[in-house]
Amino acid sequence: MTSGLRFLIAAKRCEITELQQLAHTSALVNAVGRLVHGLQRERGLTNLHLASQNAQWEAALGQQILDSETLQAQVASCFEGMNVATARPSQGARLFSRIAYALQGMAALPALRRRLRAEAWPAERATAAYVRLISSLLAVVFEAADTAADPGISRSLVALFNFMQGKELTGQERATGSALFAAGQANAVAQQRLLHLIESQERCLQVFEEFASPPQWQAWQLAQHAKQLATLERMRRVLCTASNGAPLDRQLSQVWFDANTAVIDAMKAIEDRLALDLLELCETRLAAATAELATFEALNSQGNTSRFDPADDLSFFDQASPDLSTPASALSPTAPGFGLQLDRSILELVQDQARRLQSMAQELDTVRASLSERKLIERAKGLLMAHRRLSEEDAHKNMRQMAMNQNRRLIDVAEALLSMAEVLPEPQR
Amino acid sequence: MTSGLRFLIAAKRCEITELQQLAHTSALVNAVGRLVHGLQRERGLTNLHLASQNAQWEAALGQQILDSETLQAQVASCFEGMNVATARPSQGARLFSRIAYALQGMAALPALRRRLRAEAWPAERATAAYVRLISSLLAVVFEAADTAADPGISRSLVALFNFMQGKELTGQERATGSALFAAGQANAVAQQRLLHLIESQERCLQVFEEFASPPQWQAWQLAQHAKQLATLERMRRVLCTASNGAPLDRQLSQVWFDANTAVIDAMKAIEDRLALDLLELCETRLAAATAELATFEALNSQGNTSRFDPADDLSFFDQASPDLSTPASALSPTAPGFGLQLDRSILELVQDQARRLQSMAQELDTVRASLSERKLIERAKGLLMAHRRLSEEDAHKNMRQMAMNQNRRLIDVAEALLSMAEVLPEPQR
Repeated sequence: MTSGLRFLIAAKRCEITELQQLAHTSALVNAVGRLVHGLQRERGLTNLHLASQNAQWEAALGQQILDSETLQAQVASCFEGMNVATARPSQGARLFSRIAYALQGMAALPALRRRLRAEAWPAERATAAYVRLISSLLAVVFEAADTAADPGISRSLVALFNFMQGKELTGQERATGSALFAAGQANAVAQQRLLHLIESQERCLQVFEEFASPPQWQAWQLAQHAKQLATLERMRRVLCTASNGAPLDRQLSQVWFDANTAVIDAMKAIEDRLALDLLELCETRLAAATAELATFEALNSQGNTSRFDPADDLSFFDQASPDLSTPASALSPTAPGFGLQLDRSILELVQDQARRLQSMAQELDTVRASLSERKLIERAKGLLMAHRRLSEEDAHKNMRQMAMNQNRRLIDVAEALLSMAEVLPEPQR
Repeated sequence: MTSGLRFLIAAKRCEITELQQLAHTSALVNAVGRLVHGLQRERGLTNLHLASQNAQWEAALGQQILDSETLQAQVASCFEGMNVATARPSQGARLFSRIAYALQGMAALPALRRRLRAEAWPAERATAAYVRLISSLLAVVFEAADTAADPGISRSLVALFNFMQGKELTGQERATGSALFAAGQANAVAQQRLLHLIESQERCLQVFEEFASPPQWQAWQLAQHAKQLATLERMRRVLCTASNGAPLDRQLSQVWFDANTAVIDAMKAIEDRLALDLLELCETRLAAATAELATFEALNSQGNTSRFDPADDLSFFDQASPDLSTPASALSPTAPGFGLQLDRSILELVQDQARRLQSMAQELDTVRASLSERKLIERAKGLLMAHRRLSEEDAHKNMRQMAMNQNRRLIDVAEALLSMAEVLPEPQR
């Protein structure tokens, strides 16, 4: 009677399939990161070009579009190469739905470029279009982080997603500032937006710090050069402190673009490292799970009835052995089940496995809590935007103000807002 | 360029696979429920037999064991019939691990029965052994509820799990009371345990009320007969109010057993109904998803480039169309995408699908919150049990007392306890 062992093996095979899919998703995230980087440059150059009509920007933009097209083809081929038939059903549905949305955006990109070449749109609208496309790509990464079942990998994906999101906000800052400089005039709305973007970047990097490994965090510290940071902060001050309508020196466009680009490029290098670490982690996990599976299968082929016949063994009912039916039992942790001994009973193997999966599930809850917080805050923000017709920045400012006034955390304010949603009137359309 | 549509179809296929597996899991839950019911009877009869050595109980027990064996064979064949190769990887691992543990217990059951026939164990220990086995089976149902990705089905499974758990606590009450009556003497520890079991039943039924559909709740109300309830409450009073060591009328064994059995049998009828409703729900969902898939595939085979060529269509970037990259966008709900029109654009279909999945994910968060609360409370209870060497009842009483003293919810006390866990000393062994 080796039914228990059979399901132990099935459980391990499930873990391995999941890890293989995570490895593929990680490669996909890497390709998405490269495309996002290209689109961020394209957005910055588009803004400069739209605002200044300078031939220098036009040439750079043309080159960047060619690069973006190559990167887009790589992401598309990565998507197409996904084995949609064997994907995890439920999470698969959400991930695929995100991919379908991103693909719609990618398909519409040539039309967007043609429209922008014809200069039918103002710079703000161009920025917004690129923001939406990039955001649809980052949503794929968010979904991957939210659905990964291995807590270590989920942790890495959360760090990576927040870093990518932070980089995108830096990119938006670059685009917004570029448009301001190129227009040659300060603008209170754009300045407010800049401040919001700077603050949001910092929040993303805080989450990154929380979830990155110490070497990753250290690498990011080392990648930031004091001199570049000082230039960036000086330019930020010039931009944000000018009174509404005051002239801005168009000549500073290039300095602004370069200062932001230096930060973004440094971030790209770190992002590449994070993506590599993630792939390595997937492979380590995969190797460990494969070794365990081999041990289980060896046990299975031996029949393993030599030492323990469950029909004579009452240890399942032994009060001293942990009851694995309740989540509480995961409180007696043991070392993870690597290097299993062939002479252990199946019950012990089952107990180890159950304990390991339970403590993984607990750790996963902790990691996902940060994503849930993000979701709740975004949802509450969306509620305020819909009901009070506020911009995203204003909704965020509003919530932050409530939190300060009530001496509560932002997440508590978000929860309170959402719980009031049912009694609020229908949003104005 | 129908890549978006291709992933929309892949997402729908994932949903369908998930629903098929949920239908199979529901059938499994049904078989588990029947076996649990048999084991509950076997436990009650074992207690009566161990305590009284009455030939009448012996015959009934022998018959019940035969019944249990048939039910066990059905569950085992249900387990064996699971297509472990195509199961959902990550949740699969947890579900399979629970099944492996339950199978170990089922395999050890003949040895347990032999030991009990030889009367080597006291009734309390026999009860504890059956409790552990049943708990390992109910853990399979809990895991199924925790991993279902469809919020409606998850809600049904939560209602069903809590009802089954409530019924099991009633069964434990029957066994504990049977042992008391058969021993012919009141016992303060067992009385305390009875009170704990009664209170825990009520909590389970509260969660059931919260998650059951109104007709299900009404059916449960109708299934409880006032006269039977009155008998049960009278017997509870007799048992719980006798002073420690006072004689109990052995003749009341049968009345006690019958009063509890009437409740348990009524619960079994409701449980069967819940299981049927669950299967029906799976089938309804499956039919709807299959119809949607057919529509998507019809669109795909038409090429669907007639009305909208994404390369000319800028609606993805239209500020009026919702941005589906952030969770906030799910705030503008639309009717679910049944009865799709063939002339809608792929972007609209993608938007509908994304919105639906997002609002499903939000609903799922709400449903799972109740399971998380249970996990946190169980974990905190386990912590107290390990650190202060308390029984489960005492740990629970302790936490309830803290909650009352501090005017907080039980779940808040559990969270506070768990957050202190890191600074607590190692548990005594």
